[in-house]
Order: sequence, then structure tokens, then C-alpha cells
Amino acid sequence: MSTLARKLNDEIVGWVRTALRQSMATNTPAARLLRPGAMAALNRVVGLAVPFARRNRFEVLEIRPGYLKARIALKGNGNHFGTMYAGPMFVLAEIPGGVMPLFECSSATLPVLKQLTMTYLRPAKSNVTVEFSLPPDALGKVEAIALRDGKADFDLVGELKDEDGVVVATSRALYQLRKR
Amino acid sequence: MSTLARKLNDEIVGWVRTALRQSMATNTPAARLLRPGAMAALNRVVGLAVPFARRNRFEVLEIRPGYLKARIALKGNGNHFGTMYAGPMFVLAEIPGGVMPLFECSSATLPVLKQLTMTYLRPAKSNVTVEFSLPPDALGKVEAIALRDGKADFDLVGELKDEDGVVVATSRALYQLRKR
Repeated sequence: MSTLARKLNDEIVGWVRTALRQSMATNTPAARLLRPGAMAALNRVVGLAVPFARRNRFEVLEIRPGYLKARIALKGNGNHFGTMYAGPMFVLAEIPGGVMPLFECSSATLPVLKQLTMTYLRPAKSNVTVEFSLPPDALGKVEAIALRDGKADFDLVGELKDEDGVVVATSRALYQLRKR
Repeated sequence: MSTLARKLNDEIVGWVRTALRQSMATNTPAARLLRPGAMAALNRVVGLAVPFARRNRFEVLEIRPGYLKARIALKGNGNHFGTMYAGPMFVLAEIPGGVMPLFECSSATLPVLKQLTMTYLRPAKSNVTVEFSLPPDALGKVEAIALRDGKADFDLVGELKDEDGVVVATSRALYQLRKR
């Protein structure tokens, strides 16, 4: 990426981060009004960064410090058994590890996926969601180490659920937050 | 899937399997002429079974008993670093475990993915390919157990390479072949 494109990118990401934080900071009517727009902007940024995610109907539904909920659609993602193919669930489990640092860390660092294990338990016959919860200061601590040492690992363990709340798959992802 | 749809599906898969086997059985000019058509038909069947694979530019390049080579395109599958996103490499590693039994086992069994671990080593800046080699009779033995016991596990371990032959990721997948 050129220096100009990267600066522009940082600018846009910074704006989305600010809009998200402001819309989550309070629960006033104004903040609640801002949220859908901020979430749409976040998903637009994800789609620009990783077209694969948007094309395959991945969407962040909720985000706040230490928490993210995302969904992947069954539509277009089925297989010949009429259930969801394994690939979309990989995307659902993976993208949050890129988005949470985008929201919580500064643009001085960026996350890279090192390893992801998907375990499939049951067929998924609906949209699938995942929620990740971390202690509110967990990513801040990871970022402090990355800024000091150049890199720091973190992991995300998820349960992927169908619309009935049944766990259809689990994920264990290892990321590295790197100083840019 | 309805009984009729399943019968039709089995019919098509059977036809592709026969065309592939015939075109690989000898190396006569006629057999060589048949191969591209048989490969195109195989990729059409993969695309019908898993639209996700075809939409994201997965393609089987070569197949024979105990061997499969596949490719995923960089085009459309990049990320904001200008390298390949992790998701397409998951697809590249995963689909062969469905296709090899399709080619080598009977329609009395079908493969299901239980677990897949992707390990990312280096950024991929080109199309990525993977080759899987098994002893020629390995899947036949797995199928015999599945037909006797109702199910049998098998795994595929892969090295994903860029166009310079550099290993950019590794995969370890566990499948279960089930009696239908």
C-alpha cells in the first residue's frame, strides 16, 4: 500500500473508531441514533479491507470494548446437504480478531492471524453468530507489549451458534499484534 | 435434498467420476483430449455442491487416485495488506477432502469435515496451490471401514505454496467418511 493510501486508510479507520466510541460512550438518544451509522461504517471498512468477508455476507452486529458479536448468513453459503459450508464459519470466527484491535488499539499496531483451528460439531441450518468477550483492558495490555517489544500474541476462543442457540462449531485463533 | 434430487446428483457425480477415470486410465491421445472436459465437469460439480468454493475462485487442477492438486486465485481474495486473506487458503485446504472421496469412493459414503487447523507462515502475494498425496489404496481402506462400521476418520495434511514454491501456510484437516 502506498504511503498516501495508508494515511487515507488510517484517517478513515480513525473516523470510524471515533464514531463508534462516541455512539457507545453514553446511552443518550443522540448516541443511540448514531450507532447504526457507525456500525454500517465499520462494516464498510471491513468490506474494503477484506472483500472476501463482505462478499460472503459477514457482518459485525455489535461492538464495544472487550466485546464483539458477528454473524454470517446461510444464504449463498450452503452446501449440497442444505447446511452451511465450513468456510463461512471460518470467516465468522476469524474476522473479529482483526476488528477488535481496530476498534480498541491505536493505528500504531496491526493484527496478523497465525493459526486458527475450527472444530465442527453439528450441521448449521440457519445464519450463525459468534460473540467474543475479553476483559475490557485485555487488548490494551497486548498493545502495550507490542509497542514495547514489536509484537505480542493474543487468542480468541469462540462458540459459533445457530439461531436456536445451539453450538455448531468452536474456534481457537491465535493472532499476533505487530508494531507497524 | 429430495430423493429425486439426490438420485440426479448421484447420477451426475457418477458420470463425472467415470469420465475422469477413463481420461486418466490411459495416456492415449483420446484420453488426453477427454481430460480438460472431465476436469471442467468436476469443477462444475464442486461449484454446484459448494457455491462458496467456486465464487471464491477455488479450482481443482489435477486429480488421480491418491493425488489432487488445487489452486485458489489471489484475484478478489486479497486484504488491505495486498496479500491473500486467510479465508481463501482455508477453502483451498478444505475442499480437496471432499473431492478426493467423490472421485475415489462410491456414492454409498460421504465425507464430513470435523476439524481443520490452518497455520499461516508467510504472506501470500500470488495464487496459492496445494497438493495432497495419499497411498493409492488409502481411501479405499477408509471406505471399507465406513461401510462396515458406519463411519471412518481420515486426515489430510497440506502445504500451501505460492507461485515461487514457498510454503505460505500449512493445514491439518480431519474428516469423517460416513455411510449414507
